[in-house]
Order: sequence, then structure tokens, then C-alpha cells
Amino acid sequence: MDTHEPSGAPEPIRIFVTGGTFDKEYDEIHGRLYFRDTHLPEMLRLGRCRLDVRLRTLMMIDSLEMADTDRTLIVENCRKADEARIVITHGTDTMVETARALGTAGLGKTIVLTGAMVPYAFGSSDGLFNLGSALSFVQVLPPGVYIAMNGRAFAWNRVRKNTQTGVFEDIP
Amino acid sequence: MDTHEPSGAPEPIRIFVTGGTFDKEYDEIHGRLYFRDTHLPEMLRLGRCRLDVRLRTLMMIDSLEMADTDRTLIVENCRKADEARIVITHGTDTMVETARALGTAGLGKTIVLTGAMVPYAFGSSDGLFNLGSALSFVQVLPPGVYIAMNGRAFAWNRVRKNTQTGVFEDIP
Amino acid sequence: MDTHEPSGAPEPIRIFVTGGTFDKEYDEIHGRLYFRDTHLPEMLRLGRCRLDVRLRTLMMIDSLEMADTDRTLIVENCRKADEARIVITHGTDTMVETARALGTAGLGKTIVLTGAMVPYAFGSSDGLFNLGSALSFVQVLPPGVYIAMNGRAFAWNRVRKNTQTGVFEDIP
Amino acid sequence: MDTHEPSGAPEPIRIFVTGGTFDKEYDEIHGRLYFRDTHLPEMLRLGRCRLDVRLRTLMMIDSLEMADTDRTLIVENCRKADEARIVITHGTDTMVETARALGTAGLGKTIVLTGAMVPYAFGSSDGLFNLGSALSFVQVLPPGVYIAMNGRAFAWNRVRKNTQTGVFEDIP
Repeated sequence: MDTHEPSGAPEPIRIFVTGGTFDKEYDEIHGRLYFRDTHLPEMLRLGRCRLDVRLRTLMMIDSLEMADTDRTLIVENCRKADEARIVITHGTDTMVETARALGTAGLGKTIVLTGAMVPYAFGSSDGLFNLGSALSFVQVLPPGVYIAMNGRAFAWNRVRKNTQTGVFEDIP
Repeated sequence: MDTHEPSGAPEPIRIFVTGGTFDKEYDEIHGRLYFRDTHLPEMLRLGRCRLDVRLRTLMMIDSLEMADTDRTLIVENCRKADEARIVITHGTDTMVETARALGTAGLGKTIVLTGAMVPYAFGSSDGLFNLGSALSFVQVLPPGVYIAMNGRAFAWNRVRKNTQTGVFEDIP
Repeated sequence: MDTHEPSGAPEPIRIFVTGGTFDKEYDEIHGRLYFRDTHLPEMLRLGRCRLDVRLRTLMMIDSLEMADTDRTLIVENCRKADEARIVITHGTDTMVETARALGTAGLGKTIVLTGAMVPYAFGSSDGLFNLGSALSFVQVLPPGVYIAMNGRAFAWNRVRKNTQTGVFEDIP
Repeated sequence: MDTHEPSGAPEPIRIFVTGGTFDKEYDEIHGRLYFRDTHLPEMLRLGRCRLDVRLRTLMMIDSLEMADTDRTLIVENCRKADEARIVITHGTDTMVETARALGTAGLGKTIVLTGAMVPYAFGSSDGLFNLGSALSFVQVLPPGVYIAMNGRAFAWNRVRKNTQTGVFEDIP
């Protein structure tokens, strides 16, 4: 059965953190953006999230700096994870590439990638909205790889990021 | 078919606003909480939401003050709406009652109620997380009435609000 | 000499916390505003304040609930304090009354009362602006009792709160 | 008389905006910090500031990029301004240099420079605290040039920025 309707005792969900704008912070001594610790625990607290979520930081990098070895690490961690439902926080610039690596790996799990256009550390971030969105999609979508951005879930092979507008859209 | 997998051109989604803590503001002249305009448009902008969302404010009240006539108004608006997918923002105190009124009405639509424990106007609100969550559930769940809180979706007849902890949980 | 121009090693400044809207928080279980701990330490950190500040919470109440005994407590604490420069955070509703009690006590110290129209816990608070303002006035003004609100410093006997607008103004 | 004690009808205060971290914003399309419009009006509204403030943006640049011509522009604008009390928002990296240019110009006005270590657009900014601080110092300090940071006012020729800690301190 494809549908996953709500029932008691939600399945565990794995969250893999890889960095991206989602987790960037402002380094006031050097006047630049950088990574420290992930804000995921704080965001889950803010959302009063009562899911059985297991968090693991795989890396904290800008996705423009991801190499094949990084993507392989992500795929292998998804493969080895006990959980069948996985959310991955990721930079938006190459999110589609990582989604492709996961999609072609055929892992048979429900995997949702999400990120943010504005760092969570800012007041005007889409991070919290996207996190709520991704955690919901991952509970109800059938096995496959998806990108959750702008309120929507896109199948991994039917989406691109419009670099002019910063919005994710269907490939026609 | 029950499943609703992602595809292009998302269906329109109706959002009915009824108030609740979600939309409360601080009245600095009188030192109390009150309602002005809904923050939904601002929240959808913050989330960079690209869904086809239609917004309508039905009322702006604390759900503890809802009467049967208010609930009837909500049910009738859901019935008459063109959209088959509806999100309702609502106070958490009597969200289950309104969900019951909708559930027993058997409207054949996917209806998701959500709210917030802390006003969006505060820095520490769960509002944005819950909105992202509800908008995602409503796109994928089969027809029925649900409550989206704490990262989960509950069927309307299997949930209660724990008034000690402020958390929504399954009825055992 | 009346003027106090800047020099090295600033004098210690005492901050007495009495509550008021400045420190109110939202109680999500009961849906109301209440007091927990003061936010002063967090606000001083945010402002990267490097003054020699000593903090003490005298009470945490809405100033509408202040009685003579509370005002007497504030006056006596100011009298006994080692510091010659004191900031008091206070509800705005009866800030003028407490300023009068202090002014007529003739303590010979520089005392500045301040507060906020919107709780610091909200995103749209004047609290941080007023704190920066009060801490600056207290370093430079000659002995006397003042109210620092709306960017200005008012002598205690020449100010009132306009309850229509929530703004502090000169008594003509 | 040197002291400027509070009285009715505050003198007009000129604010010159020059940019700096104070006003930086996050450009989500290119993932970098940049300048758009100054946040000063919004910050004055947040602080419920009732001073007679006149705002003018002279430039919006990182102070590391300031050249002598920029500093000359600032000095000349201060000289020609009708107001005797002036606040200048400025990047912290070369604030001391601009203060020196103003100090040696001997304009006979009270001029206070301030800035922020973290952009106001972030949730954790010292901007609002520093603005309240600077606007208060400028009303009460005698003619001279000062830097208002970290809650203190420093005479222009007795201060430096500690680039390790990001804190302003006295020159021993």
C-alpha cells in the first residue's frame, strides 16, 4: 500500500545535516558567514516537534563546495541508516545533484531534501517553514527521493532550482 | 487512488483563518493580547511558499470563545469551497471540537487544522513550523479531517490536546 | 562638577529589576502573560555591553500592582546601594509614581528608570533600545532622578505617561 | 555650561547613515551580504523614539572600503548641517579613523559615531542597543567627537577597536 495515513506511534525519522544556508551564521569578528553547530535541535524545540527524530551531522558545508565523495557519503549513510524515512538538510545550490545521486541509488526509502534561502539565524528565514514541510512530507510520501522547497514536494528527477528567482520549479 | 504523489502544477489550496493564539498580537496601550489582521500572508512570504493558496478570514477569535454557530460557519465554508484541500488555522484549545464537527459532516475533502502554542508575533513561535507542516500534509493525505500539530498529523477522532503539557497526542 | 565626560574605567552601574512589560513572557499552557526570569543578562549580552554592571532583581511585578511597600523597597535599595549610578527597569504604567518616591527621597545619586511598551520576548520590542538609552544617560547625567523612554530623559517631576498614545511627554 | 540636562522640546538631532555591518542584509540569490536601504527608520519606530530626528544617507558601504574622499564627505556634511548634535552610523572596522578626521576638524558640535558587530537584519544584533545608546549620549555630552559602542562613550582620540575580540576599549 502506497498511502501512509496517520496512526499512533510515529515511525522514527532520521535527519542528516549537511550544512548549507540553512545553518550559516554570522561571524562578527571577520564579518562573514560561516558554520558552527547546527540549529536543528533548536528548531525542533521551537516547532514543539514530538516525532521520534534522530539527528546526525554528516558535514557542514556550502553545497557549492560539495564533491562526489561528499555525495557518496550522504548516499551511503542513507543506505546504512536503520530508518526508512530520512530528511536531509542541504544547501539549495546543488540540492538537485545530491537528490539525483540518491534517486539513482534506488535505496527504497522515503528521502526528502530541504534547505533554506536565508539562514535560520536571520529573522526572515524560510528554514522553520521548510523543516515543518519536509518532516510532514517524509511521513506520508511513498518510497522515493524528493525535494521539499517553497511548500511543495518535487520528485528528484522533475525539479530544478531557478537561479534567477531562487525558487524551485518543475521541469516541464 | 489514495496516494497523492507530487506532480507539476499543484492543486489550489484554501486556507481559512479563524484566529487562535496563532494570530494574537500584543496591545501595548492596554497591556493585553488581541487580534488585528492575520499574519498568514507574511508567513507565506517568509516561507517563500509557491503553492496556489487562497486565503479567507472567517473570524478572529480565541477558540475558547467559539460557539456552535461559529463551528457551523466553518463547516459550511468548507462545504461550499471550490477547493478539495483545505487548511484551517485555529486556536488549540478547542481544535478537536471543530475537527469533530468537520469529521462528522463527511465532506469528502482533505481538511487539516493547525494552530500555534505561542503567537507568531513572538520570536519563539511554532506557528511557521506548523504552517509548513499543515500545507504539506494537506497536499498528500487522502480525504479526511486531520489535526497537524507537533510535527504529526492526527485523524480527527483519534487525538486530544494534553492540557498539562500543551502537546497533542493519540487517544490510546 | 556636573558634567561627566567619558574617561577610562567606567564607574560601576547598578541595575535593579522590578518587572513590568519589559520582562513579561507568554505562558503557552494558560495563554497569558507572566513573569519568569529577567531577560536583562541576555539583553546586555546582545548589546555586547562592557560596562561594569551589577544586576539585582527586587521583584517581578506589573507596576499596576505596586504598593507603597514596593516603592519603599525600591527607594531603600537605591539608598543602600554602593553605586552612585542606578538604572531601574520598571513597568511604564506607574513609573512616574516610583520616580516621584525616589525624587523626593533626595538620595544624591543618578537614577534612571526605564521600561518597555512591548515585552522583550516579542520581536517588536523597544526594550533593547530603551536599555541602551538608559545605560548611557545614567553615565552622563548629574545626580537626580530621570525617566528614560522614547529616546529622551525626563526629570522625574516634569513627565507623565500619555495613556492614550503610550508615549512619555513633558508636563507643560 | 557643559552639562546638558533634560528639559522640554528636545533639540533636533541629525543622523547620517554611512552603512557598515549595522545595515547589511542577506542577498539570498547570491548568498552574500549586501546593502539595500537603511533600517534606521524601522529601528527608530521600534524604539518608539520621539526625538526630532532628521535622517540622511550619505553612503552605504563597508567601512573597510572607505577612502579619504568618503571621510571628507562625512566631515563636510557635519560642518554644513544645521544641527549641533549629530549621530553617524558607521562600520566598526574604521570607525576610529573617521572619528579622528572629525575630531581634528574641530567642528564644535557633539558628534557620536556608532555601529554594530552583527547586522540589524539578524536576530542577535547589538544595533538597536547601540542606537539607543548613541542617541542618548548625543543629547547630553558636550561638544566633541565620540564613539558609542559596548554601552560606553569614548573620546575619539582615546579609543581603539580590539580586532581579536571585536570590542572597543580605551587606549591606555
